[in-house]
Amino acid sequence: MARQLHLGAFMRPVSIHTGAWRYPGATRDGNFNLKAISHYIRKLEQAKFDYFFMADHLGVLNLPREALMRSHTVTSYEPFTLLSALAGATSQIGLVATASTTYDEPFHVARRFASLDHISGGRAGWNVVTTSNPDSSRNFGMDTQPDHAERYARAHEFYEVVTGLWDSFADNAFVMDAESGIYFDPDRMHTLDYKGERFSVRGPLNIARPVQGWPVIFQAGASDPGRQLAAETAEVVFAAESTLEGSKSYYDDVKGRAVKAGRNPDLIKIMPAVFLVVGDTVEEAKAKRAKLDSLVHYDSGIHSLSGMLGHDVTGYDPDGPLPEIPESNASKSSRRFMVELARAENLTIRELAAKAGSYGGLAFVGTPETIADEMQNWLEQGACDGFTAMFPYLPEGLEDFTDKVVPELQARGLFRSEYEGDTLRDHLGLPRPANAFFPDE
Amino acid sequence: MARQLHLGAFMRPVSIHTGAWRYPGATRDGNFNLKAISHYIRKLEQAKFDYFFMADHLGVLNLPREALMRSHTVTSYEPFTLLSALAGATSQIGLVATASTTYDEPFHVARRFASLDHISGGRAGWNVVTTSNPDSSRNFGMDTQPDHAERYARAHEFYEVVTGLWDSFADNAFVMDAESGIYFDPDRMHTLDYKGERFSVRGPLNIARPVQGWPVIFQAGASDPGRQLAAETAEVVFAAESTLEGSKSYYDDVKGRAVKAGRNPDLIKIMPAVFLVVGDTVEEAKAKRAKLDSLVHYDSGIHSLSGMLGHDVTGYDPDGPLPEIPESNASKSSRRFMVELARAENLTIRELAAKAGSYGGLAFVGTPETIADEMQNWLEQGACDGFTAMFPYLPEGLEDFTDKVVPELQARGLFRSEYEGDTLRDHLGLPRPANAFFPDE
Repeated sequence: MARQLHLGAFMRPVSIHTGAWRYPGATRDGNFNLKAISHYIRKLEQAKFDYFFMADHLGVLNLPREALMRSHTVTSYEPFTLLSALAGATSQIGLVATASTTYDEPFHVARRFASLDHISGGRAGWNVVTTSNPDSSRNFGMDTQPDHAERYARAHEFYEVVTGLWDSFADNAFVMDAESGIYFDPDRMHTLDYKGERFSVRGPLNIARPVQGWPVIFQAGASDPGRQLAAETAEVVFAAESTLEGSKSYYDDVKGRAVKAGRNPDLIKIMPAVFLVVGDTVEEAKAKRAKLDSLVHYDSGIHSLSGMLGHDVTGYDPDGPLPEIPESNASKSSRRFMVELARAENLTIRELAAKAGSYGGLAFVGTPETIADEMQNWLEQGACDGFTAMFPYLPEGLEDFTDKVVPELQARGLFRSEYEGDTLRDHLGLPRPANAFFPDE
Repeated sequence: MARQLHLGAFMRPVSIHTGAWRYPGATRDGNFNLKAISHYIRKLEQAKFDYFFMADHLGVLNLPREALMRSHTVTSYEPFTLLSALAGATSQIGLVATASTTYDEPFHVARRFASLDHISGGRAGWNVVTTSNPDSSRNFGMDTQPDHAERYARAHEFYEVVTGLWDSFADNAFVMDAESGIYFDPDRMHTLDYKGERFSVRGPLNIARPVQGWPVIFQAGASDPGRQLAAETAEVVFAAESTLEGSKSYYDDVKGRAVKAGRNPDLIKIMPAVFLVVGDTVEEAKAKRAKLDSLVHYDSGIHSLSGMLGHDVTGYDPDGPLPEIPESNASKSSRRFMVELARAENLTIRELAAKAGSYGGLAFVGTPETIADEMQNWLEQGACDGFTAMFPYLPEGLEDFTDKVVPELQARGLFRSEYEGDTLRDHLGLPRPANAFFPDE
C-alpha cells in the first residue's frame, strides 16, 4: 500500500482564528459548550483522525484592552478536565493536551497524563511546551520568565522525570492475589530517585504504567533548541514551515538530528499545522477566507503582530514597511515567519497586521480536490508525514473538511477508512516503548 | 419539614479499608475499572447523595515493603481526570476532589476546579488539604516537609488566591456581540494582582466564573489551626470524632469559631466521616466487619499504626501497652484518636494495630434500622448536619447502604427522595457566593 497521511486536529473551542466567533453560523459560545465540542470530536473520529489536540494558554493573553476585548481566547476549559470528559464521548481518537514544563511539577504532569491514558484506553498524548508568555509567568510568582535556553534545558529534564515516572511499575506488577494478601510485587516497582540540576523527584508514581507505556510525545519546536529537543524526544512534531521547500528542509533536518541521536527517524511523524478553508470552487474558498479575515479588527491584528514579533510595533507608521526588529525572548519561529513574510511580499505593517491577526501561517485554501492535491504533493515530496489540521470556524469549517476532503483523500488511498487499532500509538504506527527498568517483560 | 441529613460518599476506588480487596465478591481491580466506579457513582446518585468524594494521595504511601505490598492504594486514577470522566456518567451528584495546597500552584488549582464546575454544570467541590506525608514532599523536590503551622498558613493564603481568581469575571462579562466585534467587556474582568507572603499571582484566571460562583469548599481539619481554617473558610467539614459527645463538642466549637469569624454557622455543614457496615441483623453486620478486619495482615496494621502516630512502633512489644508517644509532624487528629483509643480501651499494641489497619475511626455497624437510629440521634442531638459515608468493600457494601439504609432514612423523612436542584450548592442548601469584585450583579 502506498504511504498514507496522518491527520490530527489542532483545536481551540471557538477556533484558532481571531475572527472566527463573528463568522455567520459560528458557535460563538463554544468556550463552554461541551455539547458542541463533543460534536466536533465525534465528527473527527468518524473521519478517522489520528488525534484531537486542544491548545492551551496559562493565562489571559498579554494584549492591550482594545485587542483583548475582541479575543475569544480569554476563557475556556482546562485541557485535562475537558479531554477526560471527551474520552467518554469517543472510543478511538487520540486525545492530546499541552502541559507546560515551565510552571508545573513533573510528578503532577506524569500523573495526569497516565490517568488520561488509563481513562481513555490508551489515547493520550503530551504536547511538551515551554511557556514564553510573560503574563503566564506572573500567574506563577515570577516577575520575569526564564530565558529561552533555560526553558529548553528545564523542558529536557522535565521530560526525563516524567517518562521515568511512567515506568514506575512493570505491567505484571499487580498480582492481586487475595489468598496470600499480596496486592503487588514490590520487585516490579521502580523508585526513580531522580536528582538533576533542576528537579529532585523520588517516585515511584502512584499509578500503574499507562496503557500505551508512555503517552505519545508531541512537540512544536522550531528554534534550534526546539528542533533538537524534538529530534531527541518527540514522536509527533507539528511545527510548520510556510512553503513546501521550507518544510522539506525542516523534515530532513529534524529526522537527521534524530538519526544522530540514535533514533529511528520513521518513529518521528512530522505533521505541520495547516489552516484549511474548503470551498466548492477555489474562488469560493478564497472568498470565505477573505470574509473571515475581514472580521479581525485592526486593533487585534496590530497587537497579534507585536506579540509574534516580541516587539511593540503599534508606534510605527501602519502604511510603512516593517523596520529591523531586534531579537527578543518571544517564540523564534513566529518572529522569523512574520519577518520573512514582510520581506518576501513587501508588506506594510497594516497588511502584515491583517495577516498576523487572521493567522499568517501555512494555509491550504481551495476545493477538496486542490487541497488533496497539495497534501498529496507534500507527502510525496517528503515534506511531511501528515498534517495537523486547523479549521477556520466551527462547526462548518470542520465539517467541510471531514465531509468533503477526507473522502477525497480516502478515495486516493491517502488516508485510512477504518482505524486499525484502538490506541493513539496504533493510529500513528508507533510501538509501545519498553519499560526502562523492566525491559524483559 | 423536619431537619434532614446530608449524605456524601468518601471513596477510594477499591474502598478505604486495607483488607477490602480481599473480601469475597469485592472488585479487586477497582483502581482502573472505570465501569465499576461509574456504577458506584450512579448508585449514589440514584440514592440522591449530595456528593461523591474521591480521596487522594500525592505519592506511594511511606510503608515498609511488607506492608506496602499488601496495599491497594499504590495505584489509582488522578482525581480530576477521573471526576471529569464521571461528570458525563451522572447529572446531579456533586463531584469533590482533593487538591493539596502544599505542592501545587493556586492558578492551576483554581483553573481545574473552575473547569470541572463548568463541565459538570455546577457540581464541583474542593477538599482543601495540607499534605503531611513525607514521601509526598520528596516527589516535589523537598527533602523535608514544611511544618504544621507553615502548612496551614500556606493553605490559608492559597485559598485566598484561588477564590480571588474564581471571581475574575462578572457573570455578564461575555457579551459576544458579533456586530461590534466585542467578545467581552474588560470592565467586567478583574485582575487579582495578589501579593502575599507566599504567593504572587497576577491573574485574571482565564476561565469564566464557575457555575456555582465558587466550587464548594470542603475540609477535614481537626487540629486547632485546622478547625480555625475550617471555621473561616469551609462549607463542608468531614472531620470525625469517635463519639457522639465528642462530635457535639466539635460541632459547637467549629460553629462557634465561624460565628466569631463573622459567618452564618448554618452555612458550614458538619458531616463526619463514618464507616458503615450493614447486615440483616446486628450480628451479621458485626460478622461482616470481623471478616473484613481479619483480612488485614499484621504487617499492614502495625505500619498503619506507626503512620497514624507519626512514630515507629514496630520495635515495641506487640502484646504490651502503648508507651508515651512524642509529638510529631504527623496529622494531629489521627495521632490523638489512636492514643485516646489505646487508653480508653486498654489495648495492646497488637490490638491497636488491628484497629489502625482496619479503620479505627467512627463506625456504625448494624441493621438499616439501627444505623438509621444512630444517624437520627446524631442529627437530633446536634452532633452533625449529616454524614460522609465510607463503605467497607465494593460494590456490595455500598449497595447495602443505598438499597437498604437510604430507603429507611427516606421513610423517616430524614433524607431527600428527589433532588431539589442541579448543583452541589443546591443539594447542600448553600447560596452562590457574591463576586467580591462585582457585588452588584
